Amino acid sequence: MSDQHSYHHQQLTIGMFGFGVVGEGLYQVLQKTPSLKAHIKTVCIKNPDKKRNAPAALFTTDKDKILQDPEINVVVEVIDDADAAFDIASTAMRNGKHVVSASKKMIAENLPALLDLQAKTGKSMLYESAACASIPVIRNLEEYYDNDLLHSMQAIVNGSTNYILTRMFEDKLDYRDALLQAQQLGFAESNPALDVEGYDALNKWIFLLTHAYGIVSSPAEHLFTGIQNIQSFDAIVAAEKGWSIKLVAQAQKLSDGKVAAFVLPQLVKPDNHLSFVRHENNGVVIESGFADKQFFYGKGAGSFPTASAVLSDISALRYDYAYEYKKLYHHQPAKLADNYYLRVYCSFNLMTDVQRDDFEWIEEWHAREERKYLVGVIHAGKLAGSTWWKENQVSLILLPDPLMESIDLVKLKRKSLELAGIQLHHGYGMGS
Amino acid sequence: MSDQHSYHHQQLTIGMFGFGVVGEGLYQVLQKTPSLKAHIKTVCIKNPDKKRNAPAALFTTDKDKILQDPEINVVVEVIDDADAAFDIASTAMRNGKHVVSASKKMIAENLPALLDLQAKTGKSMLYESAACASIPVIRNLEEYYDNDLLHSMQAIVNGSTNYILTRMFEDKLDYRDALLQAQQLGFAESNPALDVEGYDALNKWIFLLTHAYGIVSSPAEHLFTGIQNIQSFDAIVAAEKGWSIKLVAQAQKLSDGKVAAFVLPQLVKPDNHLSFVRHENNGVVIESGFADKQFFYGKGAGSFPTASAVLSDISALRYDYAYEYKKLYHHQPAKLADNYYLRVYCSFNLMTDVQRDDFEWIEEWHAREERKYLVGVIHAGKLAGSTWWKENQVSLILLPDPLMESIDLVKLKRKSLELAGIQLHHGYGMGS
Repeated sequence: MSDQHSYHHQQLTIGMFGFGVVGEGLYQVLQKTPSLKAHIKTVCIKNPDKKRNAPAALFTTDKDKILQDPEINVVVEVIDDADAAFDIASTAMRNGKHVVSASKKMIAENLPALLDLQAKTGKSMLYESAACASIPVIRNLEEYYDNDLLHSMQAIVNGSTNYILTRMFEDKLDYRDALLQAQQLGFAESNPALDVEGYDALNKWIFLLTHAYGIVSSPAEHLFTGIQNIQSFDAIVAAEKGWSIKLVAQAQKLSDGKVAAFVLPQLVKPDNHLSFVRHENNGVVIESGFADKQFFYGKGAGSFPTASAVLSDISALRYDYAYEYKKLYHHQPAKLADNYYLRVYCSFNLMTDVQRDDFEWIEEWHAREERKYLVGVIHAGKLAGSTWWKENQVSLILLPDPLMESIDLVKLKRKSLELAGIQLHHGYGMGS
Repeated sequence: MSDQHSYHHQQLTIGMFGFGVVGEGLYQVLQKTPSLKAHIKTVCIKNPDKKRNAPAALFTTDKDKILQDPEINVVVEVIDDADAAFDIASTAMRNGKHVVSASKKMIAENLPALLDLQAKTGKSMLYESAACASIPVIRNLEEYYDNDLLHSMQAIVNGSTNYILTRMFEDKLDYRDALLQAQQLGFAESNPALDVEGYDALNKWIFLLTHAYGIVSSPAEHLFTGIQNIQSFDAIVAAEKGWSIKLVAQAQKLSDGKVAAFVLPQLVKPDNHLSFVRHENNGVVIESGFADKQFFYGKGAGSFPTASAVLSDISALRYDYAYEYKKLYHHQPAKLADNYYLRVYCSFNLMTDVQRDDFEWIEEWHAREERKYLVGVIHAGKLAGSTWWKENQVSLILLPDPLMESIDLVKLKRKSLELAGIQLHHGYGMGS
């Protein structure tokens, strides 16, 4: 019976770059699953002397043994070198091969070129595993939201930082110890700065914004930071309110059609779906016109979740599946917004480390023996144009529902606070 | 650029049955989205006199105007009559047309015939909207778990009962009032018994079991009930423990390879992902070897979520997507288990309404003025073979982690309880 179902499936002959835990796992699964009609013909590796759990004839150190082999119609790339990965992916597509990639950094940094190559060669490039590993977020954005009005998207896309935050908050672990454990468990990138300073989350956000809103951007265009400045003091303040702190990547369509997008730590209330996301898990909340609020949750890191996503991409190539980037090609692509305000919590040791002038107003002001903090409203441009808020142990964290759309809203908010008798401190007035 | 991407997409000419909120919504969206290359040529309706928001030339009351039209290559069926829907779907496939259906009851009751028709005609039948509306659970089972060891699946698949339970628990609403509100909001089936007695959840579970485990079964083979017997007393007991009550559809692979599957109300702890699912939402937790634990959450009922799922099925037909039912055709399909035990809470008014002999043992026994309850272990076969536990206001609810796999485990558990000094009451001994 199955033959009639899969009559139009093509046979996949795969060349793979990399044979780490993900690569070897894929090889084993494909060996055991002839029904997939996909087999790995050649594997390109760097070190030929390493003992590997597969026949020696499978391996080569010559990339052209894959890229120039006309029989190979799919290149799978699971290596940890963004420049080499881009070279492999682009040559493969030019040589008429589909590509499956797990390299978020490579994709984020070369997005326009990769889009161009897909369009020009007509070849498919799939990279579900690069987003949230086991969570099929790209596929869902492509298939479910293509004709739907996507209001907003909020996500925890970096398992390593979320693991660290969870251990810090729940087990009162020191930041360094939590990071070390994340690395030992294999959740962290080989370069931890990629995770903890927010680069990895931003890289993923770059191409998720393309699928969600048709936005083609580069990392430099975005407001972002990681969790490197979060203090145990912040954890205490959050806990007092019953909130947690998460590194949240988010995007929201504003009334002018532009999309506010940023990756920043945020105070999260217990009723926010993301508060549910603990340890190395990832979570994505998508709010749209038709489907309302959806929440996808799962393992966002680790070799098995990554392998399972790569496998599903390979599986999709059998029926010629390709991303359509409908929001980019078939709709009017959205533009990044730069005119909006954020409500933030900001803790610091010295008042002089904080640029008080940058704030529209400051609503709250607390000084404790060990550290001080304020709550205020700041224009996104002020954050994008400065670095004081990530230096000198200043810790800036978004409040729940941090986004305010226009100066009107800001004024309204200000008025309501004044009516409520709360005194606002503007700029230099704050010390009074 | 887009042309190169979608060069292999076929033009879809759709004949649709039904023009309620879902049908009309689809018509509007397809009108506005020429890039989908799908247009509705003919709509078959029952009542030709009803005023409709579309050109009169679109409509017919003659089903053959669709089923016999060689130009129509896709039939979309969004009607509320399972027998008519089966007739439409099977005739359409025999006449060489793909089918998109939203009728869970029709699919559950005709599964072997529908599988056979798909295999024989080579036509695709997609029904994502029939499972959890906006949650793409079937597609994810097909694409992500096809080669993965699926340990277990737990889900809230009926939005109506979940809405009623949420309102009963959180707002102390009376059962009847909560049901009425669910109906007014459009979450409930036209026949409320389908929802509250568990039939709707079971129907969905029937075909989800096929995609997850290759199990082809009929409703009569399953252990199930709904929420019709849940008492406010049960809510009080649950709340005392900090738990909630949910109608949970679940399946778990046992060590002998068989799958225990049932739809029963269950006490849910706050750390269970399903505790997060409130009101009319649905949620699915899938535990597997590769991807570990995944949680999908979203609107499981309502016209927009349903329309968005139907639309994604239509969209997938452009690239000839078909379910492969890999667990059924390419693997050894699993069998339903009948030899396992369940730990249950059971509340009742009169002791004589409970079959004490059916229990392996009773661990707890509580009598309050208004009502009594016990906690005990019972063989699944004893429940499947009797009806006392859904009659005379007896309310049987599973405990958290209710499944015990074999008599060995049961004995072990018993021994540990005895060692802990807890007295077990077997059968008639319970009164002592």
